[in-house]
Amino acid sequence: MSTADQEVRVARAYLSRVAEPPAPALAAFVTQAGPVLAARLVRDGEVPAEVAKETDARRLVYQPEQDLASAAAVGARLVVPEDEEWPAWPLAAFDLATARGLVAPLALWVRGAAPLADLVERAVAVVGARAATAYGETMAAEIGHGLASRGITVVSGAAYGIDGAAHRGALAAEGATVAALACGIDLCYPAGHTRLLDQIARSGAVVTEYPPGAVAARHRFLVRNRLIAGLTEGTVVVEAGIRSGSRNTAATARALGRIVMAVPGPATSAMSVGCHALIREEAALLVSRVEEVVESVGRFGLDLVDEAEGTHRPTDNLDPEALRVHEALPHRGGRSAEEVAVESGLPLNRVRALLPTLELSGHAERCDEGWRCARRRREPSTPSSPNAAPAATRAPPRTPD
Amino acid sequence: MSTADQEVRVARAYLSRVAEPPAPALAAFVTQAGPVLAARLVRDGEVPAEVAKETDARRLVYQPEQDLASAAAVGARLVVPEDEEWPAWPLAAFDLATARGLVAPLALWVRGAAPLADLVERAVAVVGARAATAYGETMAAEIGHGLASRGITVVSGAAYGIDGAAHRGALAAEGATVAALACGIDLCYPAGHTRLLDQIARSGAVVTEYPPGAVAARHRFLVRNRLIAGLTEGTVVVEAGIRSGSRNTAATARALGRIVMAVPGPATSAMSVGCHALIREEAALLVSRVEEVVESVGRFGLDLVDEAEGTHRPTDNLDPEALRVHEALPHRGGRSAEEVAVESGLPLNRVRALLPTLELSGHAERCDEGWRCARRRREPSTPSSPNAAPAATRAPPRTPD
Repeated sequence: MSTADQEVRVARAYLSRVAEPPAPALAAFVTQAGPVLAARLVRDGEVPAEVAKETDARRLVYQPEQDLASAAAVGARLVVPEDEEWPAWPLAAFDLATARGLVAPLALWVRGAAPLADLVERAVAVVGARAATAYGETMAAEIGHGLASRGITVVSGAAYGIDGAAHRGALAAEGATVAALACGIDLCYPAGHTRLLDQIARSGAVVTEYPPGAVAARHRFLVRNRLIAGLTEGTVVVEAGIRSGSRNTAATARALGRIVMAVPGPATSAMSVGCHALIREEAALLVSRVEEVVESVGRFGLDLVDEAEGTHRPTDNLDPEALRVHEALPHRGGRSAEEVAVESGLPLNRVRALLPTLELSGHAERCDEGWRCARRRREPSTPSSPNAAPAATRAPPRTPD
Repeated sequence: MSTADQEVRVARAYLSRVAEPPAPALAAFVTQAGPVLAARLVRDGEVPAEVAKETDARRLVYQPEQDLASAAAVGARLVVPEDEEWPAWPLAAFDLATARGLVAPLALWVRGAAPLADLVERAVAVVGARAATAYGETMAAEIGHGLASRGITVVSGAAYGIDGAAHRGALAAEGATVAALACGIDLCYPAGHTRLLDQIARSGAVVTEYPPGAVAARHRFLVRNRLIAGLTEGTVVVEAGIRSGSRNTAATARALGRIVMAVPGPATSAMSVGCHALIREEAALLVSRVEEVVESVGRFGLDLVDEAEGTHRPTDNLDPEALRVHEALPHRGGRSAEEVAVESGLPLNRVRALLPTLELSGHAERCDEGWRCARRRREPSTPSSPNAAPAATRAPPRTPD
């Protein structure tokens, strides 16, 4: 695998600390000048005013070698756009979204052995509330497990609640999962997920655009969320309150042209209000099963979901007229064809033609009084079929619910 | 109130029995010839072949006076299109939908004192599974109650489960509710809802297009469902299995140009699968609260829903730069403006301008070491605000979930 020069990596390590992301002016400047020259000009303060505004406060904090060493100390590395493992394809969407203030990261600090681009070649974000319900965590774990077991990487934010459950579901499937942090790669946030983050690094990757030592801060979570959206083909919001960072991730995903999905929940649950708002007001796709998620991000013509299975009634294959004749048959005693015609409202000749057909298909049988519902069907029938059991004549039928 | 001639009523009573609805050819024939002449020609068998096909089996069953008497015996009447109380306006949608096999009823048997047109002037259908869950019945009752207490009539099918809960919710609000039956007006189906149907007739109406004595049959439920859709401005499906008559009602409502709504539920609930499919595949509007239902069927510019309330944080009104400065302030000890600039990544002059502003708004305070988060806010703040309580310096902030 081709990797960038050390000079480039050092320059980007410095650039990753010098501005608080997202720094659109700096990003444009780096694209224009290249990372090595850009880093030197930033450090010397010889940059356009807009870039200076983003970089002046920290331009003299020059510690790239130390940052690379801090990362190495925890088994992490700096992945730069010049590396083959840079996820160039998913992050290319940012180039079209810069007008909306969405800027690709200048570099990514990564803990985990697998090449990052390979990990996110097929990836879906599963995000949601920290204060999740048991229902939400179950759904997150099932979707995480289902995606991972289909070879799709689960990307999330390693938070308590939905994020953690999604990562754990992927780990339980022995699949790949990626955690994007809002702090330095050498810090574990939340602290209670230190062990989880270690497991994620072993099976996938922990990534961040913040330099070593950077602490988690609220605005950084919002910035981090765009990375979760950017690395994935679609975002599934499992549970979200009415004000939720997950809705922010969803908005970014949409701005990047990615699919936004939301899991429904009880209308009475405060933790589903955000999901329902996404579906209701922002046209997010409702997903109830991992198969529906896979279909949405699926390869063209592949990954199609099976329709949810329903029960089948023995009369399902009857056309409307045959069904009307069948409904007019008594379960006990019998009726003449003429009586069946009046009851069903169908012409007598039609009834006379249909009755033998219904006999052949096992729906009707002849008796002394004329015709009645067949008591035992010749075709295989659902054991619990309401029509299979004898019932009082004119007993009200089971209705479609 | 103007009412039809008795001759017309007798003719339509006969027509209501002579064909199994929907009978599109007969309906067109009645429109063309008028009910009195049409009834005579049908009885005499002097009709076009298509009409004969629909009417031949029962044309000699002539008992309109007896049917009107049977209805009167249970306190019911036959309402015909020539009556002023005929719900002409909602049923007019059928005229545009005949190509899809949707045909308006020829007459309606009605039990209940109020004029039918008044009852359904503002009406919403609330329908769903018989095998409903406790959650579904609660939602149906709440929506039924909420609609009725806003003066909107709740129309449903009087079945067990969702239908019954919707009717009961409306009754509890002392509002109007209408039950559409798939059997004769003199029969109570299901039998266990006999008392409920009596209550519905007292507060609103029980209606059917089937003549007295007609028993409930499966195809009649599907035909009845179109009446529920046709009498209402919108249909709310509360719970539905994957194969459900409610989805049939919803499809008819859509064909008639009415609004289709569905209540979400747990993704794991078989009784919500039909609702989720309606939202996911048929663009039904997700509704979680009666306010959302009212808004959807609402009068233009009125009945707008309030946005669901969220919690407000004391930092909500800070712009992004001020928020970054605020996040860079320690909770204990203090930082110089220069340190805050490095931490936040903002230019020092910007930080120097923002800190006094944050002090004025009660977000920051001066201390011996420089600046820190204000411990006690001057503005009214949420009691449980995570930032209001003193915390360890550099304590990880609460993240948006």
